[in-house]
Amino acid sequence: MKFARFKVKDSSIYKGVLIEDKVKEIKGNIFGDWEFTGKEFSVNEVKLLAPLEPNQIIGIGANYVTKIADIPSVLPEIPVFFFKPVSSVIGPEEDIVIPEGIQQVKFESELAVVIGKEAKNVSESEILDYVFGYTVGNDVTAPQFFHQDGHWTIGKSFDTFTPLGPVIETELDPFAVKVEARLNDMEKQNSETDLMIIPIRKMLSYLTKVMTLKPGDVILTGSPVGAELVGEGDVINCEIKEIGSLRNTFIAAKVEAKTR
Amino acid sequence: MKFARFKVKDSSIYKGVLIEDKVKEIKGNIFGDWEFTGKEFSVNEVKLLAPLEPNQIIGIGANYVTKIADIPSVLPEIPVFFFKPVSSVIGPEEDIVIPEGIQQVKFESELAVVIGKEAKNVSESEILDYVFGYTVGNDVTAPQFFHQDGHWTIGKSFDTFTPLGPVIETELDPFAVKVEARLNDMEKQNSETDLMIIPIRKMLSYLTKVMTLKPGDVILTGSPVGAELVGEGDVINCEIKEIGSLRNTFIAAKVEAKTR
Repeated sequence: MKFARFKVKDSSIYKGVLIEDKVKEIKGNIFGDWEFTGKEFSVNEVKLLAPLEPNQIIGIGANYVTKIADIPSVLPEIPVFFFKPVSSVIGPEEDIVIPEGIQQVKFESELAVVIGKEAKNVSESEILDYVFGYTVGNDVTAPQFFHQDGHWTIGKSFDTFTPLGPVIETELDPFAVKVEARLNDMEKQNSETDLMIIPIRKMLSYLTKVMTLKPGDVILTGSPVGAELVGEGDVINCEIKEIGSLRNTFIAAKVEAKTR
Repeated sequence: MKFARFKVKDSSIYKGVLIEDKVKEIKGNIFGDWEFTGKEFSVNEVKLLAPLEPNQIIGIGANYVTKIADIPSVLPEIPVFFFKPVSSVIGPEEDIVIPEGIQQVKFESELAVVIGKEAKNVSESEILDYVFGYTVGNDVTAPQFFHQDGHWTIGKSFDTFTPLGPVIETELDPFAVKVEARLNDMEKQNSETDLMIIPIRKMLSYLTKVMTLKPGDVILTGSPVGAELVGEGDVINCEIKEIGSLRNTFIAAKVEAKTR
């Protein structure tokens, strides 16, 4: 099932399920009880939004190799995890704003896991029972704002730096998909998920040994080899075919008058 | 005004305002419209909880000096910020669990800012208008889980690693308080907030240039000199006299049977 959030003409935000070229409105909590309202829209008359408002967003650093033989036989004891603020989320077709003072940022197409049930101390063999579904994420990054001592927080945290969408697919086999990116229609990333250094089950299970994951937590599982710096006017299409395509355009920050 | 969350005998969670030795129940949104219900409790018959469920938690690294003369004349261009998961929050008198496999963790007593209004691109001179109030935070840290490349995420993210409380004080002058910690009744930290390297207004204003701060965001403003490693059975009292005292006991992780 493909869960979406969307707007119609007015400014209200609806939730729905995408079935072929229709979006059928639902009400309730996608992680709990929900039902169809009976209302439906053509997908052409709605504007899809980020498919959820995450509770938290956790990413993992440098998690793909080029070929399976390059996966290290000894995995790192402490993976590089980082948080991204929920304020950085945008949906498909929204603009990614390059911060003032720099000209380029990096795109990173990723498979994003959406947690559906509270998970603490869960084994690798059982962790996928706690996953609600999967969406596509773009972990936009401004390495110019990485701290020299290794802290990535600011470089990952600007508003618009986490496009998500177009839908949450609940019936995905995460081990049978390719994570792709096309920059201005040229392929830049295209990797199967078995090229992850820390595979999905291990990554999620590790996190639950540290912290309680909650419904609505989003885990960005790392970006394939091929991400690069881009600038104003570039168009990035992050895609996992079974989920959909997440297209965004990079724009320069407007030098705005102060808000007050 | 001192805002609190609390439990009475049953398991329901109430919100209220602490006035002398009474907690007067309120209903509504502390950041918007709220009103007194007319119900009140003696503070002795309630259990205070963390005074809010944060939207997000952002900390700043190594932000205090021992004496004002040590504040660098040129401030770092990119401050060290980090996120802590909202799942790490506990309230006064709850236990801090030392993770399995290690014997010690660090306490860090801090002034915690609670944002009350959405804030984006706000100047230093106006930023305090966006602050709802202040509470005491303990930024518990397991440096053994810091990544060798400088990432602190895991070492700061364990469940129970962010005690907050006992109340949110909305009438505090953050420049006229001392941030204190007593370990087993011995003073370990006691600094005025003018010993911060990056002062509060600059820190908050900088963050709003990067990301939109939202009501319920909590910013931990750094810990005075004197934090140290502690172990099982130690009792830590983080205190800002005008807000109150946040006491927690460190316990060892129970090696639990798997949850499933």
